Amino acid sequence: MGVSGCGKSTIGKLLSQELGLPFFDGDNFHPETNIKKMSSGHALNDDDRQSWLETLNDLAKQQLAKNSCVIVCSALKQKYRETLTKDIQHSSKWVFLQGSFEQIKERINNREGHFMSSDLLKSQFDTLEAPKNALQIAISLSPENIIKTIKNELMTTSEFGLFGLGVMGKSLCRNLATNGFKISMFNRHVEGVEEDIAKNFKAQHSELDQAEAFDDISSFINSLQTPRKIMLMVNAGKTIDHVIEDLFPFLSKGDILIDGGNSNYNKTKERFAYLKTKNIHFIGAGVSGGEEGALKGPSIMLGGNKETYKEVQPFLEAIAAKDKNNLPCCTYIGNEGSGHFVKMVHNGIEYVEMQLLAEVFMVLKKLGNNPDEIATILESWKTTVNSYLLEITIAILRKKEGDDWLVNKIMDKAGNKGTGNWTTITTAQLGVPSTMIASALFARYISFYKEDRILASQNFPSSNQVKPDVSTDEILKAYQFARIINHYQGFTLIQEASKSYKWNLNLSELARIWTNGCIIKSDLMIELVTIFKTTSNILTNENILKELNTLKPAIKKVVSECILHELPIPNLSESINFLHSFAIANSSANIIQAQRDYFGAHTYQRKDDTSGKFYHTNWN
Amino acid sequence: MGVSGCGKSTIGKLLSQELGLPFFDGDNFHPETNIKKMSSGHALNDDDRQSWLETLNDLAKQQLAKNSCVIVCSALKQKYRETLTKDIQHSSKWVFLQGSFEQIKERINNREGHFMSSDLLKSQFDTLEAPKNALQIAISLSPENIIKTIKNELMTTSEFGLFGLGVMGKSLCRNLATNGFKISMFNRHVEGVEEDIAKNFKAQHSELDQAEAFDDISSFINSLQTPRKIMLMVNAGKTIDHVIEDLFPFLSKGDILIDGGNSNYNKTKERFAYLKTKNIHFIGAGVSGGEEGALKGPSIMLGGNKETYKEVQPFLEAIAAKDKNNLPCCTYIGNEGSGHFVKMVHNGIEYVEMQLLAEVFMVLKKLGNNPDEIATILESWKTTVNSYLLEITIAILRKKEGDDWLVNKIMDKAGNKGTGNWTTITTAQLGVPSTMIASALFARYISFYKEDRILASQNFPSSNQVKPDVSTDEILKAYQFARIINHYQGFTLIQEASKSYKWNLNLSELARIWTNGCIIKSDLMIELVTIFKTTSNILTNENILKELNTLKPAIKKVVSECILHELPIPNLSESINFLHSFAIANSSANIIQAQRDYFGAHTYQRKDDTSGKFYHTNWN
Repeated sequence: MGVSGCGKSTIGKLLSQELGLPFFDGDNFHPETNIKKMSSGHALNDDDRQSWLETLNDLAKQQLAKNSCVIVCSALKQKYRETLTKDIQHSSKWVFLQGSFEQIKERINNREGHFMSSDLLKSQFDTLEAPKNALQIAISLSPENIIKTIKNELMTTSEFGLFGLGVMGKSLCRNLATNGFKISMFNRHVEGVEEDIAKNFKAQHSELDQAEAFDDISSFINSLQTPRKIMLMVNAGKTIDHVIEDLFPFLSKGDILIDGGNSNYNKTKERFAYLKTKNIHFIGAGVSGGEEGALKGPSIMLGGNKETYKEVQPFLEAIAAKDKNNLPCCTYIGNEGSGHFVKMVHNGIEYVEMQLLAEVFMVLKKLGNNPDEIATILESWKTTVNSYLLEITIAILRKKEGDDWLVNKIMDKAGNKGTGNWTTITTAQLGVPSTMIASALFARYISFYKEDRILASQNFPSSNQVKPDVSTDEILKAYQFARIINHYQGFTLIQEASKSYKWNLNLSELARIWTNGCIIKSDLMIELVTIFKTTSNILTNENILKELNTLKPAIKKVVSECILHELPIPNLSESINFLHSFAIANSSANIIQAQRDYFGAHTYQRKDDTSGKFYHTNWN
Repeated sequence: MGVSGCGKSTIGKLLSQELGLPFFDGDNFHPETNIKKMSSGHALNDDDRQSWLETLNDLAKQQLAKNSCVIVCSALKQKYRETLTKDIQHSSKWVFLQGSFEQIKERINNREGHFMSSDLLKSQFDTLEAPKNALQIAISLSPENIIKTIKNELMTTSEFGLFGLGVMGKSLCRNLATNGFKISMFNRHVEGVEEDIAKNFKAQHSELDQAEAFDDISSFINSLQTPRKIMLMVNAGKTIDHVIEDLFPFLSKGDILIDGGNSNYNKTKERFAYLKTKNIHFIGAGVSGGEEGALKGPSIMLGGNKETYKEVQPFLEAIAAKDKNNLPCCTYIGNEGSGHFVKMVHNGIEYVEMQLLAEVFMVLKKLGNNPDEIATILESWKTTVNSYLLEITIAILRKKEGDDWLVNKIMDKAGNKGTGNWTTITTAQLGVPSTMIASALFARYISFYKEDRILASQNFPSSNQVKPDVSTDEILKAYQFARIINHYQGFTLIQEASKSYKWNLNLSELARIWTNGCIIKSDLMIELVTIFKTTSNILTNENILKELNTLKPAIKKVVSECILHELPIPNLSESINFLHSFAIANSSANIIQAQRDYFGAHTYQRKDDTSGKFYHTNWN
């Protein structure tokens, strides 16, 4: 691409010979009407160009289906280039032949039989929107050198870099390579601990044949096309800051760093602002799906600047999971740390989904079922409440080690890596009652006090050996009920954050990218995509209301029976306690306001004064 | 005070004439044995001095009972001075006549008939521990100027400053003044909004006759004896930082700022470190008791440097509430922000105590009792579970406005000022399951969604109009049970923080200063003082275990009945859910670990491998 006279045709033909690819001059593909218009001395407008650009786009697709090709076209505007590479962004490479007005004018005028008016050339320069994502080459270089540069840059450098080859980083590399991207992979060298990680990893997987492996930052960075796109898959926290500082000396203005770890959204905002001062673009990417999702298609939530998002979109959409309409489970979430924010809440919802299954297991076990029998029961639930977590729980329960079930041998101390903690902190900070996430977090914390628990189990002997009077169907209904409340609370937290931070988040789109690839994908999530198109509060949706009212007797019975029979079901319990606290027109919070006014003169409002005025009573 | 020859007797006599107070020379009060020992050329040791110093302390007390007096005594060591002012620290004022070795040697040798060996004087200088809290005057001044300085400093400047005359600040001023301290009071001037606050406040209360009122920072600061002791009673948050910056230009090295607001303990730590670089001492003081407590005797929790604490101790111990042994409910908590930390948790415990009473009210109301009847029931509970919050709730329930109870007119939207929020955040951060505090916080948050609640109450119509099958006695027992779990969780959070931050907190002493003056004072707290002398975990105390096991059937029944009857009792519910989750040797957290390992390769430990090794399974 480039203005008339920049040398596109010459360079294009040379390149086509050099690469052994067919060559096409875009100007030869104008429709009859355009040719007539130009012949009659009229300039084309954008409408005239549209069908022509689409023809070239079709041409490129046809050629790509075979192998590849070289096409030349002035392609002065960004929107022309978008049409030209529609649906094939990540398989297209732009080369921009760049020269000054004077250089090009002189060059044209020196050509035999050519003359171009200054005005016409000037209008081309006025129209030109310099591309961001192209290889830019000065026309002052010799054609040989131009060809050499193009070959060096486009054929041997990588399109995308991945920094950090842990479980997730490795899976993403394989996913990118499988999708045809040329990538560079980096893992640090730590003597005796992490040696030749990238090199060995490349050797283990045939899809990585074209990938470059590094343990030296400088070589890694230099292997990437500019503006560089580097995804960081390292531990969240201080590490990410250290990595940014390590990379910084080698980066160029306009390079893009994508933090794909579970970073705290507040930190992402800080890093975004910091890197902006250094002219480096930053994206906070929530990536869900675990090891398998990262490999086969994760759900990806991108937060940051929308322009920057567009530059990495082709890569991330290609590797993302696809929803039932085959659309990528990858979307632009919003500004700042919003990508990491929604990923954090995703994990909070996940904590609850996991805890609920653990509680269901506990109750079904108390009813006398062994893990296989519980798996069979859960299997039968799939038609009603299917989800990824339900499926893996069934698989887990069926896993045997010798004669015993493996699950019986696993230590009952649940770990956590911080996102449930952050969600609880955030919900407290924003004044939103996400009670179930907090409860699920605390259930993990309690589990960790194993030694104290053993002592307490002796000090509080259970008097009750009778089984709770609950049916399997009632447990299913209680589970269904609690899951809906969980999703209500999680999305309400996102909605309230969206208001507080002015992110203008789209809950339906968010639910859509969570229908596949991620850990909390479920049939319920698919329902929510539609529901969120009309409301941000699912407790106002008629179907949901009907369902919850139908399920309510079961959750009430299951929770009360479990409490009487001393079964720990904090999360099931919280779901119904929440509804009872929420669906009450007149609560007992008036007592609390009176107490606060009594001892601290904190004042109160009155039910009979809608002005919201504050009153103080001298209570003594 | 001062070394021999500094001029104590001369100045003491002049001062006594000037002030019209009796004069005593300490040397005249030695017992016979000391006089004999000295006469025989032997030096006194500290044991010899002890009874003599006690005699002088008695003398001072007797004189103070009448009015006051001037006593001179070399008082070279800090421990001598402590004995001399025992129990009358805040009524005693030290003047230190300071001169160099050469000055004093020359002065003695010039006196007629006096001679002191260099060795003897040198030993006095070696012994001298310069006092921190004394008015230090150079002996090079003329006696007239020395007297003038003492009068100016001691008689007209204030001992203690209070900055910020809100509800709490005003009450503390009156308390300090009633306890005989000369104070300076400051409130800012905001045109048309806050004008002459301090002046008008002084005029309203006779006990403030001697207090100085200011709305100008410079005059306020200059009215205080150095090192200045200034208590800040302003809004927590940014305000406190602004106030510190406003005060800073007027302060001197060694001055002490006491933040008496509910500041975040992390911020207190930061401010402590910041002010240290400026040579200003900082104390984070938790002050509980509300308006009434502040006036009549609050509970005060001081965190910071222990040396600094000692300087403000006389003032704060004097105004604090007294426990049943008449000891002040004021203590040194520990380093950094530990004072504000324990105050924060105090408030978290308070949130739960209030929420539990609101839930009890809700259940008793559902049983058909009106507020007066509920008050009568709660009154009857005082012999079993008395507490300040129970008492004020009874008073609140009895308050009428016309024919109706006032409580019925109070809006059921509970406010909060951040400490419950911080406690929830802290418990999440420290990995401690303080589930009841989180639940009480969220109950307030839910109450705030009044409009959504009204809508939800229509969407989830309650089918159940039957009263729950629970007796008043069972409700009392459930309430007792929940309160014990609340105190267990609150103190466990403090204990875990003490370990994490290496604060070495004394739980028994903390419970002691919470037995009076503060909002959560109760009979249970008095029990805890003793229990914490032998354990930091009350769930290992036999009496507590016996009590909880006795109460357990009632809490199980009350919670299950309330859930079946759709009564919101999130906090009562959480108390029993916590125990069921905690008192279980084998929980279902193994399911969560298996799930985490399945999707994220997070690994797990095994029950049959005590080495703590981590395992990973390929689940597919």
